[in-house]
Amino acid sequence: MTRDECIALDARDPLAAHRDKFSLPEGIVYLDGNSLGALPRAAIERVARVVEHEWGAGLIRSWNAARWIDLPRRVGAKIAHLIGAQTHEVMCADSTSINLFKVLSTALRLQGSRPQASLRERKVILSEKTNFPTDLYVAQGIVDVLGQGHEIRLVEFDQVADAIDDRTAVVMLTHVNFRTGAMHSMQELTSRAHSAGALTVWDLSHSAGAVPVDLNGAAADFAVGCGYKYLNGGPGAPAFVFVASRHLAAIADDTYAQPLAGWLGHHAPFEFVAEYRPAMSIDRYAVGTPSIVALSALEVGVDTVLSAGIDALRVKSIALTDLFIEVVEQRCAALGLSLASPRNSSLRGSQVCFSHPHAYAVMQALIQRGVIGDFRAPDIVRFGFAPLYVSYEDVWDAAEALHQVLAEREWQRTEFQTREAVT
Amino acid sequence: MTRDECIALDARDPLAAHRDKFSLPEGIVYLDGNSLGALPRAAIERVARVVEHEWGAGLIRSWNAARWIDLPRRVGAKIAHLIGAQTHEVMCADSTSINLFKVLSTALRLQGSRPQASLRERKVILSEKTNFPTDLYVAQGIVDVLGQGHEIRLVEFDQVADAIDDRTAVVMLTHVNFRTGAMHSMQELTSRAHSAGALTVWDLSHSAGAVPVDLNGAAADFAVGCGYKYLNGGPGAPAFVFVASRHLAAIADDTYAQPLAGWLGHHAPFEFVAEYRPAMSIDRYAVGTPSIVALSALEVGVDTVLSAGIDALRVKSIALTDLFIEVVEQRCAALGLSLASPRNSSLRGSQVCFSHPHAYAVMQALIQRGVIGDFRAPDIVRFGFAPLYVSYEDVWDAAEALHQVLAEREWQRTEFQTREAVT
Repeated sequence: MTRDECIALDARDPLAAHRDKFSLPEGIVYLDGNSLGALPRAAIERVARVVEHEWGAGLIRSWNAARWIDLPRRVGAKIAHLIGAQTHEVMCADSTSINLFKVLSTALRLQGSRPQASLRERKVILSEKTNFPTDLYVAQGIVDVLGQGHEIRLVEFDQVADAIDDRTAVVMLTHVNFRTGAMHSMQELTSRAHSAGALTVWDLSHSAGAVPVDLNGAAADFAVGCGYKYLNGGPGAPAFVFVASRHLAAIADDTYAQPLAGWLGHHAPFEFVAEYRPAMSIDRYAVGTPSIVALSALEVGVDTVLSAGIDALRVKSIALTDLFIEVVEQRCAALGLSLASPRNSSLRGSQVCFSHPHAYAVMQALIQRGVIGDFRAPDIVRFGFAPLYVSYEDVWDAAEALHQVLAEREWQRTEFQTREAVT
Repeated sequence: MTRDECIALDARDPLAAHRDKFSLPEGIVYLDGNSLGALPRAAIERVARVVEHEWGAGLIRSWNAARWIDLPRRVGAKIAHLIGAQTHEVMCADSTSINLFKVLSTALRLQGSRPQASLRERKVILSEKTNFPTDLYVAQGIVDVLGQGHEIRLVEFDQVADAIDDRTAVVMLTHVNFRTGAMHSMQELTSRAHSAGALTVWDLSHSAGAVPVDLNGAAADFAVGCGYKYLNGGPGAPAFVFVASRHLAAIADDTYAQPLAGWLGHHAPFEFVAEYRPAMSIDRYAVGTPSIVALSALEVGVDTVLSAGIDALRVKSIALTDLFIEVVEQRCAALGLSLASPRNSSLRGSQVCFSHPHAYAVMQALIQRGVIGDFRAPDIVRFGFAPLYVSYEDVWDAAEALHQVLAEREWQRTEFQTREAVT
């Protein structure tokens, strides 16, 4: 493989034209779209219009005139197409962490409401040790606030299936691991969970927009996910939440099945009555008023994914990540790297990670060369390949930069700089 | 009083120049800044810069390079100056409802941790019947999720002081009532609550930016508030949260005293460890990643308030609202209006409400005339006076429009149009 061959791949890439829809800085190879997606050019104009026209000129009237009130469901319905959900099962609200609090609470509530005989002390939230920390923190907070003797059991990534048993209330997993990019089988684990009487909560933060997800095909119960990674919604974009129709129906008479009771989740928020009565739909997962500017940017970001098509994106994602592994292993052999992501693309999301004893300094040196990925403790260099705007040429240039950094030991000259990254 | 006299008041108004800092539509008298504050012109450029330069060009690097990571505390510190708090006691995060869930949980936790002998079944959350509904919903949700026999007691606005007793755990109040504009005495009620062994949670949504608040002067315990009303942060702007230093110290060893445990509230979020350990500061009231675009717009909005000075704003607010009452009562006598706000300005926030049997249609007719206030069920027309950009001429024009609508019975011709407003 040569650089020219990579450029030739770009010339044949059916998604190549999508790169121009993004505003990318000159001279940068951006392999961190799994931390913060790039800026869609259309978001510049959309945000300006929302600010100047809808907020400035429309003022309060824009809640109706500009249909601000519809945004959480409208953007949610678009995301539904990417994750195998029905449009009425998804909405945008709050952050991934807050949404996880909501659905994990609902899941535990549903388990608690089953006849006691069928429960056999079903008090375990099962997850994995390397799940994204905030997911584990949210679960820890819920266990504490409920005070009902729930416990969290953490196992290795590949031990989850075997750990599901008749004490498991909820299996809570991130579909694609934030460090390694390893992907769980949603179908298999959900099926296994259901056989054991457990429910599933999936965090799609590193899947949505890069990997086709089929929540309903897998009969998944609950899901949440992030708007600012592969959905390109901008820094701190609103998150999304999915609740399967059957569970929305099951909790219809359970007022606080979603315990963050707020006015926008009320069945009639504009009647301003003193008693909470939730909406009989996914709307009950709303709480307070969402940022309209942030939701509008997110809508543009989701549209960029929809316009390319999630299946075509997955094809390119696999091609990019396979190629990166191939070129790095070809160019960087015996330079201390070990592949930390699954080699089999069907078990991998849209990122590739290598471990290296000096991973932090290696990534700093790469960033100084204009190749932006990130470091994940203790020893991982992580490269995200957002197929909407990453080219085969980028893959070559990143691998070549990595070769230089390692072969020339540039990382030794990298000053230690504090860098806080955001997954 | 005449229109010319109002124009003369504008000519002498020391805050008049601040109106030009806002982008207001031509031909509109905007008296709904207590639902959605107007657009600061500087926000247009700031938002564009954040989107194009910080997000688009800076990408993930902007968390450090553009100091995104500091925004929640930096904007919180600015708000602290408006509400009598220390800068390290306030941060911006999430929505008012979510923040209320956090601080009400902390308050109940603190009460629950006291020696049982001193509690005498201290299980009551005391509030008032006309509090903003979301505050009551949040409390209802917490009572349910805790499952510890807490109860909510609602009394009339002016009966709160007398209702505080040794069963009261928390007095939860909105400082300025969303419908009537009536203002509680924070000093008196907090003192009364403390004497009875209760804690206080204040919702400053209709105060911050319009009324000087002195949280520490009143020894208040907890507060939350809204960013998109008088703080001019834009639709659905992030909210803020205040926790008195002594309580931050008291909960230092109580991991889930703020039960929404998320990674940005962790003491070391970038170490990605599996166990939650909260920050030893107001930072623990963060949960997930905040919208940077929304927070940036909020910072501009808060700056508009700071540049005018909250005391000068209060002086003008009182002058505007007193004048509106005077002119309306002079021009609209015997036309069916009754003042629904306190006449004494020291008991009133920055809004004036009248009741009218056809309030909905009256407000619709006013809006058609370009005077934007809002209707609040069942019979209130509500006018908010944001002193940063509302003029004395606006006051006259609004009163005159109201006179026309009532005297000519224009409201009878107003078609019934569904209008959902957002407080």
